[in-house]
Amino acid sequence: MTAPLHEPRPSGRGRALPDTQQGMRRRNLARVMHTVSAEGPLSRAAVASRIGLTRAAVSTLVDELVRSGLLEELGPERPRRVGRPGSALTVSGSGPAGVGAEVGVDHLAACVVDLRGRVRARAMRHGTNRGRPAEPVAKDLTVLIAQVVAEAEGQGLRPAGLAVAVPGLVARDGRTVVRAPNLDWHDTDLAALLPGDPAPVVDNEANFGALAELWLGDGTPHDFLHVSAEIGIGGAVVVDGRLLRGTRGFAGELGHMPVEPEGPTCPCGGRGCLEQYAGEEAVLRAAGLAPGEGGVGLLATRAAAGDDAARRSLREAGTALGTALTGAVNLLDPEAVVLGGALAELAPWLMPSLEAELARRTSGAACPVSVSRLGPQGPLLGAAHAVLRAVLDDPAAVAERR
Amino acid sequence: MTAPLHEPRPSGRGRALPDTQQGMRRRNLARVMHTVSAEGPLSRAAVASRIGLTRAAVSTLVDELVRSGLLEELGPERPRRVGRPGSALTVSGSGPAGVGAEVGVDHLAACVVDLRGRVRARAMRHGTNRGRPAEPVAKDLTVLIAQVVAEAEGQGLRPAGLAVAVPGLVARDGRTVVRAPNLDWHDTDLAALLPGDPAPVVDNEANFGALAELWLGDGTPHDFLHVSAEIGIGGAVVVDGRLLRGTRGFAGELGHMPVEPEGPTCPCGGRGCLEQYAGEEAVLRAAGLAPGEGGVGLLATRAAAGDDAARRSLREAGTALGTALTGAVNLLDPEAVVLGGALAELAPWLMPSLEAELARRTSGAACPVSVSRLGPQGPLLGAAHAVLRAVLDDPAAVAERR
Repeated sequence: MTAPLHEPRPSGRGRALPDTQQGMRRRNLARVMHTVSAEGPLSRAAVASRIGLTRAAVSTLVDELVRSGLLEELGPERPRRVGRPGSALTVSGSGPAGVGAEVGVDHLAACVVDLRGRVRARAMRHGTNRGRPAEPVAKDLTVLIAQVVAEAEGQGLRPAGLAVAVPGLVARDGRTVVRAPNLDWHDTDLAALLPGDPAPVVDNEANFGALAELWLGDGTPHDFLHVSAEIGIGGAVVVDGRLLRGTRGFAGELGHMPVEPEGPTCPCGGRGCLEQYAGEEAVLRAAGLAPGEGGVGLLATRAAAGDDAARRSLREAGTALGTALTGAVNLLDPEAVVLGGALAELAPWLMPSLEAELARRTSGAACPVSVSRLGPQGPLLGAAHAVLRAVLDDPAAVAERR
Repeated sequence: MTAPLHEPRPSGRGRALPDTQQGMRRRNLARVMHTVSAEGPLSRAAVASRIGLTRAAVSTLVDELVRSGLLEELGPERPRRVGRPGSALTVSGSGPAGVGAEVGVDHLAACVVDLRGRVRARAMRHGTNRGRPAEPVAKDLTVLIAQVVAEAEGQGLRPAGLAVAVPGLVARDGRTVVRAPNLDWHDTDLAALLPGDPAPVVDNEANFGALAELWLGDGTPHDFLHVSAEIGIGGAVVVDGRLLRGTRGFAGELGHMPVEPEGPTCPCGGRGCLEQYAGEEAVLRAAGLAPGEGGVGLLATRAAAGDDAARRSLREAGTALGTALTGAVNLLDPEAVVLGGALAELAPWLMPSLEAELARRTSGAACPVSVSRLGPQGPLLGAAHAVLRAVLDDPAAVAERR
């Protein structure tokens, strides 16, 4: 990759800007960017009224953002509008872009998303990563990243950073994969093996999936619990529009919530963990499918065809999810629970028993459960958008580096 | 009560101050107050270096805070110090004060705390409130509050607000007790029944207990799970030094985490909830004590004397707490768990099985569990300090009202 990767911190991780004139200017630049990104096209006057600054102050900020290639002026508004024509502003479709990448147990992926949220390049490589060391996996991923970055640069975009989703626990340093059981990685500094200066940001796939849901979901609230499944069961908690990270960065681990205190032992060391009832392997086994025999896709097909074993297996998994979610909902009081990843695909057969169990245990005051529309796309899109959010959060940093 | 009650929002509930010159001044006044409160006595130069503003800017802010009665100058430092003497600043011992009150199942309490954290007046009334309607309880509490306020005013203090701890779920409006099963209150607007304009702030006792732990605890981290017990089991989650409130204000409910999915039914509608194994009534019953027969005090005495039934009952309660905490720790990844209230008194006999269960289920990577030194004092002190935090967070609001 030739372009330096800037501003890799996902939204909410950045340092607080200092409370000085200079800090205030930077925060106001960010407010203009966020407003135009969320509501544009907007005239300068409309931006000023939305953020509560004078039109003159906003014009100075907008000029700076246009010079830096972060905003574009669409030219005078069409003459059919009444009043004096204003020039409408949008975020740039050819400026900074976010590079997202994903290490899955069975695939690798990379994409580039522009500030308008359009996916401008995408690449994927199928094949298992189970038990492969991090070095060759990172090497394959670097090839995919170089490919999408070259394609995006050919379209005039400037990659502003790289973020990578992994199926494992990631330390708060945003670079070390502490434990990814399905890859067999432990304490792996993945950021050091990937391109970018400053280093790329590495995070748990459920975290990026939850952020995608927050930023791209249709009416997703700002307080929710995101539950996803690939091979394991992942979870992520969003509070007031921010990820709850936890002390070590491990918050959201729903898969090891005890569901039956003396149930089967789990590789985590516990007993009767949710993953033993609703994890992919447990559900496939209960449905009479051998590992590798068609996976979730085949299970969904059989359930749709009315296969008893498949339906029973999913019904029991739903009940276990309902029990685990009761504890989580009592503790977090979220506005909603969102099922993503493979759970989204299996939702038609999981949901009835899941919702019944949750309602039974919470006196009917149950939290609504919905199904993600992003499904398995969530983590990759969340990673790319995390880079873009960092640009919106401190556009001055991008401008200074030009 | 004659003094109007101001600034009732506990810390973190206030509106964000706008990003203008005026907003910046107010935030900087707050930074001076917080710095002197946490580290004073401090000279103006020391304050300036700690908050990164010029000494001239800090002097202007300090002058305003001294005029408003929020800071005091101790006079020139003693001549034995070298260099030019500076005047040390402290928060005022005779300015605004926080009024805290508590509705317990078996008592009422009120206190006044000054900005230096000293309890300047305190009153308590024993007697059950179980099943009493809110009106007479609020009337009794108002008498106690008037008593401590009069005593504090006699010492030159100015009550700056009232906050009230209750053993129940409180809505995010900070005034409505949605459900307090042990009082038999439902959807009760307690704030309307108590003195103060603007209205006092009402919150769950576990929330105020957790805030007390955060503000007054010895080395308590900024990310922890607080578990307390009076009659029920309460919990509160602190993340980055702020309470996690949840969508409805109910976050932290640990008592209804399922511990045995098909265990005994619970008044909440669920089955096998933690409260059925580790709640006060369950533990007393398992120890062979009738309700009302000496309570937690007698149980502790028996356990200390080596009584088998008492020790077994507490050992089993500890195991149930360990199972429930496994789920909570996996979900939140806190830096510590702190046991407060009655659990603090029973900790010597709960902790061994609790810690063993947590370690067994989390591969030895267990979160440390500690015991609160505030114990049953926590909620009342937390309420009074919540008022004081609101003063530190926006001292200009107090100054404007003088």
